[in-house]
Amino acid sequence: MGEEAIRFGILGCAEIARKVSRAISLSPNATLYAIGSRSLEKASKFAASNGFPAHAKVYGSYEAVLDDPDVDAVYVPLPTSLHLHWAVLAAQKKKHLLLEKPVALNVSELDQILEACESNGLQYMDATMWMHHPRTHNMFHFLSDPHHFGRLQSVHATFSYGVSPYFLENDIRVKPDLDGLGTLGDTGWYCVRAILWAANYELPKTARALDKPTYNEAGVILACGASLSWEDDKVATFYCSFLSDMAMDITAMGTKGSLRVHDYVIPNKEKEATFSTSSNSDFVELSIGWAPNPCVHTTLTDLPQEALMVKEFSSLVGAIKFSNSKAEEKWPTISRKTQLVIDAVKASIDNGLQPVQIKD
Amino acid sequence: MGEEAIRFGILGCAEIARKVSRAISLSPNATLYAIGSRSLEKASKFAASNGFPAHAKVYGSYEAVLDDPDVDAVYVPLPTSLHLHWAVLAAQKKKHLLLEKPVALNVSELDQILEACESNGLQYMDATMWMHHPRTHNMFHFLSDPHHFGRLQSVHATFSYGVSPYFLENDIRVKPDLDGLGTLGDTGWYCVRAILWAANYELPKTARALDKPTYNEAGVILACGASLSWEDDKVATFYCSFLSDMAMDITAMGTKGSLRVHDYVIPNKEKEATFSTSSNSDFVELSIGWAPNPCVHTTLTDLPQEALMVKEFSSLVGAIKFSNSKAEEKWPTISRKTQLVIDAVKASIDNGLQPVQIKD
Repeated sequence: MGEEAIRFGILGCAEIARKVSRAISLSPNATLYAIGSRSLEKASKFAASNGFPAHAKVYGSYEAVLDDPDVDAVYVPLPTSLHLHWAVLAAQKKKHLLLEKPVALNVSELDQILEACESNGLQYMDATMWMHHPRTHNMFHFLSDPHHFGRLQSVHATFSYGVSPYFLENDIRVKPDLDGLGTLGDTGWYCVRAILWAANYELPKTARALDKPTYNEAGVILACGASLSWEDDKVATFYCSFLSDMAMDITAMGTKGSLRVHDYVIPNKEKEATFSTSSNSDFVELSIGWAPNPCVHTTLTDLPQEALMVKEFSSLVGAIKFSNSKAEEKWPTISRKTQLVIDAVKASIDNGLQPVQIKD
Repeated sequence: MGEEAIRFGILGCAEIARKVSRAISLSPNATLYAIGSRSLEKASKFAASNGFPAHAKVYGSYEAVLDDPDVDAVYVPLPTSLHLHWAVLAAQKKKHLLLEKPVALNVSELDQILEACESNGLQYMDATMWMHHPRTHNMFHFLSDPHHFGRLQSVHATFSYGVSPYFLENDIRVKPDLDGLGTLGDTGWYCVRAILWAANYELPKTARALDKPTYNEAGVILACGASLSWEDDKVATFYCSFLSDMAMDITAMGTKGSLRVHDYVIPNKEKEATFSTSSNSDFVELSIGWAPNPCVHTTLTDLPQEALMVKEFSSLVGAIKFSNSKAEEKWPTISRKTQLVIDAVKASIDNGLQPVQIKD
């Protein structure tokens, strides 16, 4: 790791911060530089057990991380309701921002965060890790192929994981004052991103929540679905849940082919991931089989997707820091589109499942 | 083949009748006995090229098949708009009925067909062939397992095949006076059946068509989707189309596991079919993988699913004919439920995507 390594500060000791700390360690252009928690003891323990170098800074507050002039970028895995405050403050303190999802409670909050990053010349990226897996690029290549996939007609995405009774009582993701979007913000975020990704980030025109969302006693969504439609004939559906066993599917159907993946968010295995495609299939004589048959494609990766995310983010930060580049607009743009769709689905849930127009 | 073999008559020389003729030949308890077409020449050609024995009867009308006292059962692959007339007449002539899907234009027509079968003590079965594949039984066994699948939460089904420009101009499935339900009756039938099957045939309470159905110039549906919901928290979606490349997916998510199949209607290969399951999966330490990983299950079959359908149907017909058994009610019951859901989706499409209550 040369002097050019981007120095990360982490705000808080969330469980997910352990995985991202490892990713920062693994990334060739990033370094674990500081950790801040409201409890200095917790921060010290976290640093000790998550591969922070001996010289890393350990702070007893989030502010202290932001006030450290040697921190280049912060990773923010705080509860969503705290994002607006800490992300904006981080930007004001000139820290590039890797923001855990869901990035905000709504697009109005996100716009304040994005404005703070933009006006300070900072790179923003949300921590949607699977976007950085080389399999994702290979799948996107297939979806972009006019001869083997054609024009997208329909896409269905799922993400669920069966949570424990303890989670259902205590996790921040079921608390209205912490992660008010519940599973829609947590697992639904990935479904919406998957759909946007499959549609080459064309924003749908309409969102409608499906019968019937499940809530906890505090009114937080535990399971829900929605349908999306575009100006043309493309359509999409998704289903996200805390109440079903693990599932992470994308089924994308095009005029000339289709694509399936069953572990798009977190691959079954870290270094080897598969997806399957079918192209220009027809029935064989008498319609007793297919020709050609679907294919399975395997992608190998040395660096896990989380490290590839950190590497990409750090590379953009480095270009700004060392080469006066401008921030890459793709990441805030797709983050905002994801939030716009989430907001529309939430509005549809709140208005009795009426369709909601999505406006940029 | 003993004397007990059920003697089939076929009404019409539809393309699909070629596959079912082969299935009748392959089934150990059935025999190709008669073919009728409005053209005697067509019927003769069909018999000659589809394995009919030399002594098979070849008729220049459908009536003649029904009037042949030695015909036990008829297979009816006529355009849907002709089903009511010919299926009821067949029943009046005491012929057991294997009816191609979509079975009727609406449930009121189907009820007349079912009443004619029932009052004449006849077996009715629709020709939803994949129901009879041993893989289907294996999958159902998994879905019924309280420890490995749990309670169904969500199911998504697809069926599409990319049709030719010729098909889009000329096929009966795009003609309002022949198969007025278009792709909803053709490919949607399978999606709805798959959803009912996954829900152990519990009828949903509500159907709502999704934005936005695609029609041809004559107003026949070429692509559409719908969401279904039950009294409890189960939900389902499907997408059916003539405009996407081949796809036949079921994704069923339960509280403790999930199931995926990608060729449920017609397996990729005739004698070997797979599906995959996942059960009680959790993230590994640091959430960088799954444990346990999903499993692939392979089912081998000597007889193709179409022959197993004919065998099952003939066995039921034989029990009535030779052992005074009563008709098996499962088959008309699930056929009627499928039609009820199709009708509700069609009604929702016709009423501007409003929800439609499904009443038994």
